[in-house]
Amino acid sequence: MVEAQMKELDWNDAITLASPYAYALGVTLSPDGKPNIIGLGWWSFCSWDPPMLTIAVAPPRHSHDCLEHLGEFTLCFPAEDQAEGAWLCGKMSGRDVDKFEETGFEAVPSKEVKPPLISGCTVAFECRVVNSVEAGDHTIYIADVLAQHATPGKEHHIYTVHYRKMLSLGSDGYANFEL
Amino acid sequence: MVEAQMKELDWNDAITLASPYAYALGVTLSPDGKPNIIGLGWWSFCSWDPPMLTIAVAPPRHSHDCLEHLGEFTLCFPAEDQAEGAWLCGKMSGRDVDKFEETGFEAVPSKEVKPPLISGCTVAFECRVVNSVEAGDHTIYIADVLAQHATPGKEHHIYTVHYRKMLSLGSDGYANFEL
Repeated sequence: MVEAQMKELDWNDAITLASPYAYALGVTLSPDGKPNIIGLGWWSFCSWDPPMLTIAVAPPRHSHDCLEHLGEFTLCFPAEDQAEGAWLCGKMSGRDVDKFEETGFEAVPSKEVKPPLISGCTVAFECRVVNSVEAGDHTIYIADVLAQHATPGKEHHIYTVHYRKMLSLGSDGYANFEL
Repeated sequence: MVEAQMKELDWNDAITLASPYAYALGVTLSPDGKPNIIGLGWWSFCSWDPPMLTIAVAPPRHSHDCLEHLGEFTLCFPAEDQAEGAWLCGKMSGRDVDKFEETGFEAVPSKEVKPPLISGCTVAFECRVVNSVEAGDHTIYIADVLAQHATPGKEHHIYTVHYRKMLSLGSDGYANFEL
């Protein structure tokens, strides 16, 4: 059998083919001290030792203002039972609504940073920004991970197919497409 | 029902809970002009317009030498039928072996950059490094995406649970755990 030849395609379709992405929630503090939540598909670990990760946030976003004000955030992976609220966080602006109030998520205090954790997440990382770099239409925030937390019994978090479709996947490989 | 409380856990377990990660292959050119392949779980898109993405590569790796020599790479998402070869790329060093020879992967010329594409990939991005940043024990390479390609009919690529287990997932949400 002759293998199909590769063909060029547009950026948008290519991004879809590279999905699903793990969908994470970045929790920041606004200048007036109110916690805010942003939905993020563009994040990556970047160092084992010291523990570090990156997130990409666009300058027009409210979370960008928050991060420029206080370079701390938590990166929380919403559990499958938090799918609806998690999705809302990606659709609304924290300039207009209180996302904790809107989603019903419960904020619990972090150990090392000021922004809180979202209770009931699969896993959550407390992060302090050590560097930031402009990259096209986003800023990449490079952060130390100071602590990490998990909710026992919740091992599946949400994946997004280019922000159009959701599924959950566990570290055991189990998938749930019923979201 | 009272929700389980979050508990602190170690970095290694937290990274596992944040997986699976899409597993991609970074193709570079060595100073002597030989193409090399590295297995990457730590990559992220970072800009819509212009199209950009990042990869994290540790300085001791042969691919780091290659990228310092020529700031171009392709990021190829191995299809599910390429799982075995893709995994080999993450286990061997390009200093010791020719990974195209070892895996049987076929190199096809890129359109915009010197490193080739891997034939039969789900999707592949041609990238030129525009910036690099040290971040702990890795270097983050920030790159423009100059072109992208796909193989018609191949819509599932490989995910790794912390480099211990593989599954494939498609942009249609279909999962295959039999890898």
